[in-house]
Amino acid sequence: MRSYREELWFQTANRLEFINITPQVESAVRKSGVREGLCLVNAMHITASVFINDDEPGLHRDFARFLEGLAPHQPTSAYEHNKTGEDNGDAHLKRQVMGREVVVAVTDGKLDFGPWEQIFYGEFDGRRRKRVLIKIIGE
Amino acid sequence: MRSYREELWFQTANRLEFINITPQVESAVRKSGVREGLCLVNAMHITASVFINDDEPGLHRDFARFLEGLAPHQPTSAYEHNKTGEDNGDAHLKRQVMGREVVVAVTDGKLDFGPWEQIFYGEFDGRRRKRVLIKIIGE
Amino acid sequence: MRSYREELWFQTANRLEFINITPQVESAVRKSGVREGLCLVNAMHITASVFINDDEPGLHRDFARFLEGLAPHQPTSAYEHNKTGEDNGDAHLKRQVMGREVVVAVTDGKLDFGPWEQIFYGEFDGRRRKRVLIKIIGE
Repeated sequence: MRSYREELWFQTANRLEFINITPQVESAVRKSGVREGLCLVNAMHITASVFINDDEPGLHRDFARFLEGLAPHQPTSAYEHNKTGEDNGDAHLKRQVMGREVVVAVTDGKLDFGPWEQIFYGEFDGRRRKRVLIKIIGE
Repeated sequence: MRSYREELWFQTANRLEFINITPQVESAVRKSGVREGLCLVNAMHITASVFINDDEPGLHRDFARFLEGLAPHQPTSAYEHNKTGEDNGDAHLKRQVMGREVVVAVTDGKLDFGPWEQIFYGEFDGRRRKRVLIKIIGE
Repeated sequence: MRSYREELWFQTANRLEFINITPQVESAVRKSGVREGLCLVNAMHITASVFINDDEPGLHRDFARFLEGLAPHQPTSAYEHNKTGEDNGDAHLKRQVMGREVVVAVTDGKLDFGPWEQIFYGEFDGRRRKRVLIKIIGE
């Protein structure tokens, strides 16, 4: 069995941002030498997500508005978590809705994707350095 | 290490539909010959889900109403994504809430399930041909 | 390839509860002997979740309030599922929002975690015996 590990680092300009990381994950699969296996991609921080959806800017604005409706950033006093001195209670909730991780099949040395699947890093409390983990196992 | 791959195809009669795909996944596990491992089942399209819950029609109607409350199909003009000519902005959001994939343990050659766990394909933009991927790795 | 399986049992005092199960999962990884691989942790019941977030009591109260806002327990007559004689329709929906499972990388014999990641059992219909499954594969 082969295994491969790689970290991706991000520092977004905005509090909330979606970044297409498919090319970096494809590159990791190539470097892994795995032909058949599974590829885990997860946020290593608890106010961020990794998810799979469409690379369409209007949809990303729809995601942002949807999440802001469910768990608004303001007023920050609405979250008990923020009594600890944080202001990111909303980001912890947004991350739960969008998910922490994706697991993607690796087939014939490639991400085994449907026609529109793209992997995104979803940042909900940005402007600081944060990480994504890629772990690939297989043969 | 063994690996096995299979696609399931669906064309639902309705825009929103839930289909129990547990028998097809069990069959794939048998065909894989894997006794101990992991089974990934994921929607290959970004307006559909694979999830695990109860096979109870009333609950499925509860899911549908819950999702329609969070991300209503109408008015389609409420979604920026629909400016691209699509009318499925809601379906992309519903899929995020319900999730893209499940990973199920394979133990002793079977899906290692609790008493009520069943795997569903969740369609949110149906009436067209779409796919689910099953990928099994193990020994 | 190695594989390891363990069940954790819970009976919570309250209907809704979050329990940090990271120590039990770490212990399972040690017992598995796996140095490089993947660790699946999933609820075996369909009114419970396994998820990764912060071990902060204020945040857990925020989660509870958020979920209660999305899918209130009362009135139980609001859920078609409850016509079956159950009163846990809300719990099935809360579980979908929080997710069924997490997949965590195992690297160098340990859970490969970011600085604040902790694994939780999320119970939404407690006061009865329920299980979590840990399945680890790798080498």
